[in-house]
Amino acid sequence: MAGRELTSIRSPRVKSARRLAKRTFRHRDRSFLAEGPQAVREALELPGVLSELFTTAEAESRHADLVTAAERAGAPVLRVSGEVMAELAQTVTPQGLLAVCRFVDVGLAEALAPRPRLVTVLAHVRDPGNAGTVLRTADAAGSEAVVFTDASVDPYNGKCVRASAGSLFHVPVVAGPRFGTLIPALRDSGLTVLAADGAGDRTLDSAIDDGLLARPTAWVFGNEAWGLPEEILRDVDEVVRVPIYGRAESLNLATAAAVCLYASARAQRTGCSDRPAPGGPVAGEASTGTERA
Amino acid sequence: MAGRELTSIRSPRVKSARRLAKRTFRHRDRSFLAEGPQAVREALELPGVLSELFTTAEAESRHADLVTAAERAGAPVLRVSGEVMAELAQTVTPQGLLAVCRFVDVGLAEALAPRPRLVTVLAHVRDPGNAGTVLRTADAAGSEAVVFTDASVDPYNGKCVRASAGSLFHVPVVAGPRFGTLIPALRDSGLTVLAADGAGDRTLDSAIDDGLLARPTAWVFGNEAWGLPEEILRDVDEVVRVPIYGRAESLNLATAAAVCLYASARAQRTGCSDRPAPGGPVAGEASTGTERA
Repeated sequence: MAGRELTSIRSPRVKSARRLAKRTFRHRDRSFLAEGPQAVREALELPGVLSELFTTAEAESRHADLVTAAERAGAPVLRVSGEVMAELAQTVTPQGLLAVCRFVDVGLAEALAPRPRLVTVLAHVRDPGNAGTVLRTADAAGSEAVVFTDASVDPYNGKCVRASAGSLFHVPVVAGPRFGTLIPALRDSGLTVLAADGAGDRTLDSAIDDGLLARPTAWVFGNEAWGLPEEILRDVDEVVRVPIYGRAESLNLATAAAVCLYASARAQRTGCSDRPAPGGPVAGEASTGTERA
Repeated sequence: MAGRELTSIRSPRVKSARRLAKRTFRHRDRSFLAEGPQAVREALELPGVLSELFTTAEAESRHADLVTAAERAGAPVLRVSGEVMAELAQTVTPQGLLAVCRFVDVGLAEALAPRPRLVTVLAHVRDPGNAGTVLRTADAAGSEAVVFTDASVDPYNGKCVRASAGSLFHVPVVAGPRFGTLIPALRDSGLTVLAADGAGDRTLDSAIDDGLLARPTAWVFGNEAWGLPEEILRDVDEVVRVPIYGRAESLNLATAAAVCLYASARAQRTGCSDRPAPGGPVAGEASTGTERA
């Protein structure tokens, strides 16, 4: 049970949590803020991650299970007024629960040790909402690690945490490696490194057809406005573009990532090039397979 | 060349353009606002669409080609002060060009007349940014029409126009039909109607494997928070879910739409079920095809 309600934003604990909206303080304390019942539930599943829980009286009764779980985990639960919660939360409609969490990222070596078959790299991704959406999409598509290079946004930025919809807590995230050291490490783990870029020589379809996507793959996604710098495009194994069939100039970052990552997920699972077999299209008729040769 | 600079937001023309931020006035005037050089360029490609162009002095010299093209098209060009542009524009950093455009949507019968093979339906999509992103993605994936049902956001909402990144001007958009009348019309045009929903019985992969996606298809996407209502799920031909391989609970609307629409684009183009042919995976080795049987 939470004790007396804190009603002042000058209370030392409120002040110290509030500072975590800034990157400098997050990295000094190696802690970040996660808002809302979903994030709190995910954080509680990882031992030692949730270090403090702020709650309004109303949220405390509505989410009694989470409050109890936080207390059992040994985390102080602090009841705050609606005004204090509004100050702490970074959303317009705070959901009455806000956790201070310890950083969850892992080292690159640790993330690569299980020899993942699908890795997502965010290089020069600057918009935290986009980065969080790609993290969520990578999780959905079965990516076993997500790397934010040092030129990308901080994965613990509040908007990124929210857009990840909990995925920050359940995909191994690597924060801050330099791109130059990253590529050799990915290759050493047996990963083919593909960059997604509108300037690619190869279409995604040809990468599927040639069996390229069936291999263990690290996908590199770049900046939402200008893509990937020349030195990265030169360094990767192949530059692949998502085909544009209509008249749109491009896809946005998260949608392009979704198409690429799901194409890999499918290619790796069917273990198949998806190429129409010699003899013509199969078109769902199993019998044509036996008519051939 | 624009005449005298308008410096007051009380100028009748500025007032009448400004009102178009509201749906009621947009629909009364059958006109909407499109911001920035890209949108203005796209609007100018459609005869009779751009009816008035507001520009700052700076943008007038930077985008002289567009200003000249607007004048040639017979549209009044009005030079406004930076303050007036800031009032007119709905973005924090207005780009100095803002067009009043006539509605570009087409009737359902007109959109279906060319017997499209890929149609996108937004049903109960309420967030204008999401709707615009789906419109852009649908365009990229080669969707030949995009339908906003009456329960979805207005396609002419400023955020939707911006997120569509010009696609509002080059995909036939149908605005406002009721869902009940829509499905029979889609079927009459030879389209199989698929709803994308996390509750689907069928995975996207099985829809590909069975050749379902190679057919002419209308994809129905629902609300970002709660999906599609029961009556729509009952009415469509099949409910298809994008598989979640990791631990994310779901994909967001635009990324799910990207995965579904690109899966259709590929299936329709390869004319193939993508199913590993009997005899085992092909895995990019053309020779295995001939070893079989």
